[in-house]
Formats: sequence, structure tokens, C-alpha cells
Amino acid sequence: MHILTINSGSTSIKFKLFDMPQEKVRSFGKVDNIGAETSQLAYHKAGCDHQQDLQIVDHRQGLTLILEKMTSGTDRVIQDKREIDAIGHRVVHIGNKAKTTLEIDQAVIKSLEDALELAPLHNPPNLTGIKVCRKIFGPSTPNVAVFDNLFHRDIPPKAYLYGIPYSLSEKYDIRKYGFHGIAYTYMVKKASQLLQKEIKDLKIIALMLGGGSSAVAVQNGKTVDTSMGFTPAEGLIMSTRCGDMDPAIITYLMKKENLDAQKMDEMINKQSGLLGLSGKYAHFLEIEKGVEAQDAACIRAFDAYCYRIKKYIGAYTAAMNGVDTVIFGGGIGENSSLARAEILNGLDCLGITIDKKKNQTLSGEGLISGPKAGAPVAVVKVDEELVIARETYDLAHL
Amino acid sequence: MHILTINSGSTSIKFKLFDMPQEKVRSFGKVDNIGAETSQLAYHKAGCDHQQDLQIVDHRQGLTLILEKMTSGTDRVIQDKREIDAIGHRVVHIGNKAKTTLEIDQAVIKSLEDALELAPLHNPPNLTGIKVCRKIFGPSTPNVAVFDNLFHRDIPPKAYLYGIPYSLSEKYDIRKYGFHGIAYTYMVKKASQLLQKEIKDLKIIALMLGGGSSAVAVQNGKTVDTSMGFTPAEGLIMSTRCGDMDPAIITYLMKKENLDAQKMDEMINKQSGLLGLSGKYAHFLEIEKGVEAQDAACIRAFDAYCYRIKKYIGAYTAAMNGVDTVIFGGGIGENSSLARAEILNGLDCLGITIDKKKNQTLSGEGLISGPKAGAPVAVVKVDEELVIARETYDLAHL
Repeated sequence: MHILTINSGSTSIKFKLFDMPQEKVRSFGKVDNIGAETSQLAYHKAGCDHQQDLQIVDHRQGLTLILEKMTSGTDRVIQDKREIDAIGHRVVHIGNKAKTTLEIDQAVIKSLEDALELAPLHNPPNLTGIKVCRKIFGPSTPNVAVFDNLFHRDIPPKAYLYGIPYSLSEKYDIRKYGFHGIAYTYMVKKASQLLQKEIKDLKIIALMLGGGSSAVAVQNGKTVDTSMGFTPAEGLIMSTRCGDMDPAIITYLMKKENLDAQKMDEMINKQSGLLGLSGKYAHFLEIEKGVEAQDAACIRAFDAYCYRIKKYIGAYTAAMNGVDTVIFGGGIGENSSLARAEILNGLDCLGITIDKKKNQTLSGEGLISGPKAGAPVAVVKVDEELVIARETYDLAHL
Repeated sequence: MHILTINSGSTSIKFKLFDMPQEKVRSFGKVDNIGAETSQLAYHKAGCDHQQDLQIVDHRQGLTLILEKMTSGTDRVIQDKREIDAIGHRVVHIGNKAKTTLEIDQAVIKSLEDALELAPLHNPPNLTGIKVCRKIFGPSTPNVAVFDNLFHRDIPPKAYLYGIPYSLSEKYDIRKYGFHGIAYTYMVKKASQLLQKEIKDLKIIALMLGGGSSAVAVQNGKTVDTSMGFTPAEGLIMSTRCGDMDPAIITYLMKKENLDAQKMDEMINKQSGLLGLSGKYAHFLEIEKGVEAQDAACIRAFDAYCYRIKKYIGAYTAAMNGVDTVIFGGGIGENSSLARAEILNGLDCLGITIDKKKNQTLSGEGLISGPKAGAPVAVVKVDEELVIARETYDLAHL
């Protein structure tokens, strides 16, 4: 069975074609800078990697080009797009309108349209990807939505409720939802394999650190708490999102800078985080280079980023009365030994230590904890597409 | 030397008259419901406690009545108000315009006027109290401002910076300031006495839990982090303040409910917290009664309140790589054995345990930790007035 996974962003589409249930990847790649003067298509299959510059005006053209690659010329992996049996879409935020992975129909699209403003950076392009696939593939190919927030459905009220008037929480379904659930599904399973223990016997703190960063506490297989909230703006400092802050700063700045709610939203989502703190770089690699060059602005952003995560590790240890393992994933979690070292520095009171050499020399996945670690520290290469393919297969196969 | 301490609220004035440096209280009391149809004056001195209903139209009349009590009739403790050598005022928030306790002159008043909106519930009435005292006592009696935020001056940038554009943080001096510093000054000193260890050798987590609630981490005598922020709206769930929440909820609710920044500010400061979560009670005593009666709305508010504090204990343990003692203070911290038990339940991973019986039967101050506690847990009766009197004495005496 061929399953295509789609992760549709505002100017990009990531795709991967799987043979399921073998979990074999046939081809994968990405179109980037859709709508810009020059766009890119990167395409990979066994024995063939290439990238080309071209102009891609919209998501429909992007997906059409991807399917052309897959079905024609030397890059071909299938004969015709009709060989694709189902398409799995990453969807960031369905609110509480869904409880499970869903086959997409008009009702699901309506729910997604209602949820657009819950994740204004993510939900609209996710929906675009779905609509384009439905047009191109027609009704005979099932489209499946795998939701990032559903991993957190077990969070108890004491953790998901905000201290605002309860009538408003009810009126607008305002609560902590949490995100990165597809990644966490992968990380938690991987942790249980690495530690050779069942998920139900573990107290896990997983850190998904990338452009969007979050933390989660999972005890006995259930999410106890997570750092992202009603929207992905809460919690850790992110690439351009602010994370936790005094809520009164929002109203203060709106008054002082004469901003409306929309402009303020843009500030906390697009001009804050590492970009805001450093005043120049949104990408962690740049921040890291700056730290190594002793650039004060980069050190400021780096220190605040790492310290915030350290506090969450402590908070979640308290929430679970202990921690059995800490897992790093995401672009920063997988690649920045500097960040991992700073985040875990001085946490031996929680049984968390790091082996400096292992941390620095790690390539790919593995354990980086010190010899006396009560809670092993693991780095895993998160494969969100595989989770989407598995869930899509499970649903489409039934 | 006679020192009068004044804590001026929006409709109340708390006062205490000390002999210093003996730290002997001559009289103390409170006027309440200033400006209402019926106001109250409560007055205490050795051998005499009474309360009377009367009408008090403003702070000036309130203070005049207090001074009349002190200087005339059977309640007299001094002959004339000129025997008061200095007045110490609690001021919640001076921002970064002061580094120490200050004698109040026109420049300090100007700084306070500039800082009014940093603590919109507290600073304006604090300033009213100061202005009234200066009028009534004239220029020969020094008025001293003791600032609640200065205790936190050592917090490092990684903890005090927010993830907003740094240029705005600089432009408006936006940072975590922290409050309850006068109470924490008392609590930290008391903890060192109870544990018979020097403050410089301790990792302390202090919890000031009252109408406004906050937490602080103090290591080697320096504040490492605290839960209140730029304003007192951040951090723990409070009586009517929201504490931590997804900042994007602010802009979301403003759009949905068509609120301007001022109205939104009022919501997060006056209609949120325990009042918001329960939908009915701002006072913890009512919430506690409701919990005992298994009222779902009260349980919801109570659980969220306690859980938030537990997470802060974990976060600050991580920030200091350990904790030597946890101290409870404030109306809730001193009196609610139910809250203390719930907050500390399941924290033995951090070396924190509670002795159920000691916790329930404690009257006044003392230790409530279990026998194997790595970090003793103390309850202290916070005396903010004594701290204000000490600081005022130290300054006025020089």
C-alpha cells in the first residue's frame, strides 16, 4: 500500500512516499519558497538526490510537480498517481473538535476552517495542502488528517485550565491543547525502545526543540502537561515566538505602541523569541555561531532559551514526582550539543547528568547521559512522517 | 525612636507604630472601606482592641483619624504626632528607577508617578498614602519608601528577559521585576534562623501565598528567579489575577469579546484567578470551604492553584540545582493546611515531604516536614511592617 505524507507550510510542502506496512520510503523531498521569484524542488529516491530552481506559483503547482517527479522520467517510483492509496496530512490544531486521526470529509474541513485562528501560522497552510490534494486526487483517494494536538488529550484540568473567567474558557473552548504530538508519539516510542522499558512504566520528559520548541511530560503513557498552550505561542522561547511572558505586557505594549490585537499577535508570533531577544537571528545555528564568537546578543538569546527549558524539566519532574528519562528531538535537540549541555548543566539534583564527550561526538541517535545518571538522556532523530504514515495506514487499511 | 509604617491600599490604610530599634509595637490597626457608606477603623494597643464603624471619605481623613487615636483619649500611645520620627511606606513597584530604600522627595514622587501603570492596583494607592503623609506631617518628618520589587535586583538576564523584541524591552524597561520583596526579606531571614544556617549557604524556595501569590528562589542570599514579572499579574494563580497563561489568549479574547487593552487589563487583574476559575469566590477561605463540601467549581480552582505552585517548586529546584528549604508565608501559606498538603503532595523526588499531623495541628510558626525530609518545610508568620520599620530606621537613623 502506497501512502503519501504531506506537511504543508505557508510557502513549502514536505512529502514522503511510503510502502506500508513495510515502512519503506520510496521517495521524499520538499518544495520551498512557493510564490517567490525562485522556488526550489528537492527530490530524493534511492540512488538519486537532486534539487532544482524553478518558479512555483502556488501549492497546487507544487504538488503537481512533486507528482510528476514521482511518476515520470528517471526519478519515477510509481507509474501513476492513482497508485497512491491514501494521503496523510499533518494538521497542527483541531482544538477539541476531534478525538482521533480522521479521514477528511466536508465536516472535517469545516472544523478546520473554524480552527484556523487557533494556529494562525500553521492551520491555514495545512488546510491549503488538504484542499489541493482533494482537488488533484479526487474523491477516490482518502485524505487523512493526523492532528498534532491530540497527543495531549489526557492532560488533567488542573494543568490545562487557565486562570481566566471560566465562562470564557467554556464559551471559546480556551484551554491548553499542546502541539508537536506527532513528534512526541515517535519520541516516546523510541525512548521505550532505547530503555527497553514499557511506555506505561516510564516518567518521560521529551523536548522537541526546533523552530517551534516545546516540552512534554508523559507518565504511564499519558500526557501530564506540555508547554505549548491554547496556541503554539506559549511555553519555551522559540525561533520567532515569545513563549511564556507576563500577560500584562501584551496590553501594556498595545497601549504604548498603539498596536491592535492583530499587530500584537504578529509581534509575539513572528518578531519575538530568538529573533526578538538577539535582535538579528531567528535560526538557532546563527545564534550558536554567535555564542561561539562571544556575541553578547546571541549569548542573551541562547542563555534565556536554555534556562527556560531547564525550568520546564524541573517543573515536569515535580508534576510527575520524578523523571526516568529526558529525550531531545527536533533540529536543535538533535544537532546542538552546546544547547543540550547548557540545558542539562546543574541538574544532577534530579538525577540528570550528561557525558560531555558522548554529547559532543554523538552522531545520529543515542544516549548522552553520564555514568551515574538516574534518568538516562537520549537524543532521537524524530520521524514525524513515519508516524503520519502509520496512522494513515491504520485508518485507511481498516 | 518612633517609626510609623503605612501600607496604603485603594480603600484601606494599614498602620503600625514601632519603638525602634527595640522593635516594640506600640499600636497597630487598619482603616477599611474608605469612601464607602460605612468605613471601619480597627485599633489595637496593649490591653485595648476595638473596632468602630464610621464614615471615612478619603485617605487623608483616614490617616487623621488614626493619628487622633494614637494621640488622644484612652487609646493614646504618644502625646503628639510630632513624636513620630519617620514614616515607612510600602511601595510595590518602582521599576528600575531605584536601587535601595529611599527617603521620599519630589524626585522619588516623580519616579513613582512614572511607574503607576506598572502596578495599577497597588502603586496609585501607595502614592496616595505618601502624599497624604507628607501633607499631614510636613517637611520635618522623613517619609521613606521601601520597595517590594528591589529584593529581586540580582535576578540574571536569562531569568528576567522576556522573549519579545529586545529593542522594546530596552525602550520601556520591560523585564521581570518581581514583588513581595518585603515579605521575602522577612521569610529568608526567618528561614536562616529556623535552620540555624547562614542565608549565604542556603537554597531557599519561599512561597508568599495570599490575595496576591508569588514564589521566589534564593540562592546564596541572591534572588535567582521569581514568579511575578513586569507586573504582579504573572506567575501563580491569585485571588483575582490570572498568572501565567498563553499570551495569545489575550489578543484572542480582545478580538472575540471586542475588548480594548484597558478592559482586558481589568479582566486579567480583577476578574481572573480563583474568582475566574471558580466563577464565584476570590477568597481562598471560601474556595477551601467549597473543596471540603466537594463543590466542583472550588475543586477546579483549588487544584489549579496548588498545581501551579508545585510546578514552580520543581522549576526553582532545577534553577538552583537543589533546594534546602521550602517556606510558606502569607494568609494562605500560614493558614491553609489543605493547600500546603496538596502543593507538597508527591514531591519526595526533590527531598520534600510533609508531616501530616504537624501540618494539620500547626498553630503559628514552625516546621511541618516529615522525618526524612532533605529540605525542611517551614511555615512563618510574615511581618512586613517590621521589615519596613527596620529599613526606615536604618535610613532615618543614619
